[in-house]
Amino acid sequence: MPVGTQGSVKGISPQELLDIGSQMILANTYHLMLRPGEQLVAAHGGLPGFTAYPGPFLTDSGGFQVMSLGHMRKITEEGVTFKSHIDGANVSLTPERSIQVQEALGADVIMAFDECPPYPAERGYIENSLERTARWLERCHAAKTREDQALFAIVQGGVHQDLRRKSLDLTLLFGTPGFAIGGLAVGEPKEEMYPAVAFTASQLPEEKPRYLMGVGHPEDLIAGIALGVDMFDCVYPTRTGRFGYALTDDGRLNMNSSAPRTQLEPIDRECDCYACRHYTRAYLAHLIRAEEMLAPRMLSLHNLRYLHRLVERARTAIEQGAFQTWAQTWAQRYFRGAVPGWFVEALEVGSRVQSSVL
Amino acid sequence: MPVGTQGSVKGISPQELLDIGSQMILANTYHLMLRPGEQLVAAHGGLPGFTAYPGPFLTDSGGFQVMSLGHMRKITEEGVTFKSHIDGANVSLTPERSIQVQEALGADVIMAFDECPPYPAERGYIENSLERTARWLERCHAAKTREDQALFAIVQGGVHQDLRRKSLDLTLLFGTPGFAIGGLAVGEPKEEMYPAVAFTASQLPEEKPRYLMGVGHPEDLIAGIALGVDMFDCVYPTRTGRFGYALTDDGRLNMNSSAPRTQLEPIDRECDCYACRHYTRAYLAHLIRAEEMLAPRMLSLHNLRYLHRLVERARTAIEQGAFQTWAQTWAQRYFRGAVPGWFVEALEVGSRVQSSVL
Repeated sequence: MPVGTQGSVKGISPQELLDIGSQMILANTYHLMLRPGEQLVAAHGGLPGFTAYPGPFLTDSGGFQVMSLGHMRKITEEGVTFKSHIDGANVSLTPERSIQVQEALGADVIMAFDECPPYPAERGYIENSLERTARWLERCHAAKTREDQALFAIVQGGVHQDLRRKSLDLTLLFGTPGFAIGGLAVGEPKEEMYPAVAFTASQLPEEKPRYLMGVGHPEDLIAGIALGVDMFDCVYPTRTGRFGYALTDDGRLNMNSSAPRTQLEPIDRECDCYACRHYTRAYLAHLIRAEEMLAPRMLSLHNLRYLHRLVERARTAIEQGAFQTWAQTWAQRYFRGAVPGWFVEALEVGSRVQSSVL
Repeated sequence: MPVGTQGSVKGISPQELLDIGSQMILANTYHLMLRPGEQLVAAHGGLPGFTAYPGPFLTDSGGFQVMSLGHMRKITEEGVTFKSHIDGANVSLTPERSIQVQEALGADVIMAFDECPPYPAERGYIENSLERTARWLERCHAAKTREDQALFAIVQGGVHQDLRRKSLDLTLLFGTPGFAIGGLAVGEPKEEMYPAVAFTASQLPEEKPRYLMGVGHPEDLIAGIALGVDMFDCVYPTRTGRFGYALTDDGRLNMNSSAPRTQLEPIDRECDCYACRHYTRAYLAHLIRAEEMLAPRMLSLHNLRYLHRLVERARTAIEQGAFQTWAQTWAQRYFRGAVPGWFVEALEVGSRVQSSVL
């Protein structure tokens, strides 16, 4: 899912999202609640009317953003109080309020209000937090009034398998139509993150979508898919594009460096995005140096298309029963032969899980 | 002509330019010569290959930009020396060098190297300058080697009719395929500018394009068209769009103000641009406040489309023999009843010229 934090995937039009094969767009409850306010979005008939993107949306619960962006935040059993990062106003977000805002925003998938503890955090803190998150899930469930929105629960528990188990036990019984793996990609090493992804994904129902929140880089998508993850979101493709980097099967290309300035080939000969069909690296590198707005726009577009195409290729490989081979070949090239241990491990674990399922 | 100073109409893709009815794009010799250098553009087969805009281009001569952007510039009979605004390097631009660069850039229309004196300037300075500009025109003519580029001459003379007459006499004899009216829109009052436009345009050959350089605002396009001008260029539509202003028949809409934040109508109900077909004013005002890149992109696109549509409507009115009536009606609404004297005068002068031609 491309991320449209404030109701816009930065620099990209809805038509372009459709053209590159975007499906669901993520929008942020925290940001839209503070500005322009959910009522204005509701007055447009919800996010599709407001943003003009006609496809499905997912909204996060606001929980993660409150933790990372709110000032003077205070977490209680009731919810979270904080000062807005925009104007310093005192704001309160509770499970009920999060659902109320998400119903006004009108996404197809809404997320339960949770706490995502930082990394590292005390075991005791994580345990108390995940228990409270489960109680908040119950309140979200009770607060929900719209029948046309799917509420996804979020499994927490940090990198500790027993705490993940506990969170799973408290969460699964709600039987929500989808489950997210939360609390990861917050600074922990990949060697700690992926075993937690593997364990949690393996315990989630096979027939419901599994969503790894806030992930990721190309290698994270492949590792996640290997472990059974179905959905991802990340600002990475657009953010790294704005910073002048282009994603390719050969790794991340630094378009700010001197080499691309004279290269007459596209970013990626295999890519079918507008930028790769029309522009040389030399032109795009010129736009970056000239600080032209078209540069971040085109690199963001390319990076989104790269990730969509990567997932399309993974899907095809899965359908052909050739995912492992395909992923290994992809990784050899992407990592230039130096495939990291955590990635190899993720593929192997995924392979064993897959065999046991089949 | 939308302006693509550095080889990009800021924030807008070539496909969008085609979609909104752009025809010729202006690119700047001064900027492209300094960065990325005309040889890189030539290596792409010229501006269409470099920028991916498949339609016609016009390049300016670099003269105007040298005067306005170059540091420590020194004008001699030979040409102009200056320090680059990018890296302070000493650069020389002469009629021969300007043509050489413009041939490498490969535009369809190239401009003679001229001096555009500032306003106000001494009569004597303007006279010496226009005589030198005529000698530079001769050198441009001699330096030109490509048969597939049309060299346009530029008439100078400030706001003085006798000096315009003199520049016309020195310029017309070259019989170039098009003529530009230069040296205007540099700070002089409209009451001085339009009589100079009227006189110069009336003396230029009817069957060749007349190009009013660096103009303009919607009202300038209508006044210029009334006086027989065929071509315009200006950064105004994209620049004012980046600053949050939208052009409409009711005048310029300040999207930074508070009113649009709750308005659920498009910028302009009569406009068929992507922004007006998809977005409310409230959404666009939100994007501006949120500093989202899509805002300057969409306002620039709308403003370009507004000017293209304005010219399309003027063309239709001319074809129907109804230009005067149409222009008066347009102005009543645009100026909210307070149509300025210079505009009324331009329409009247244009009407008399038109009658004498017919």
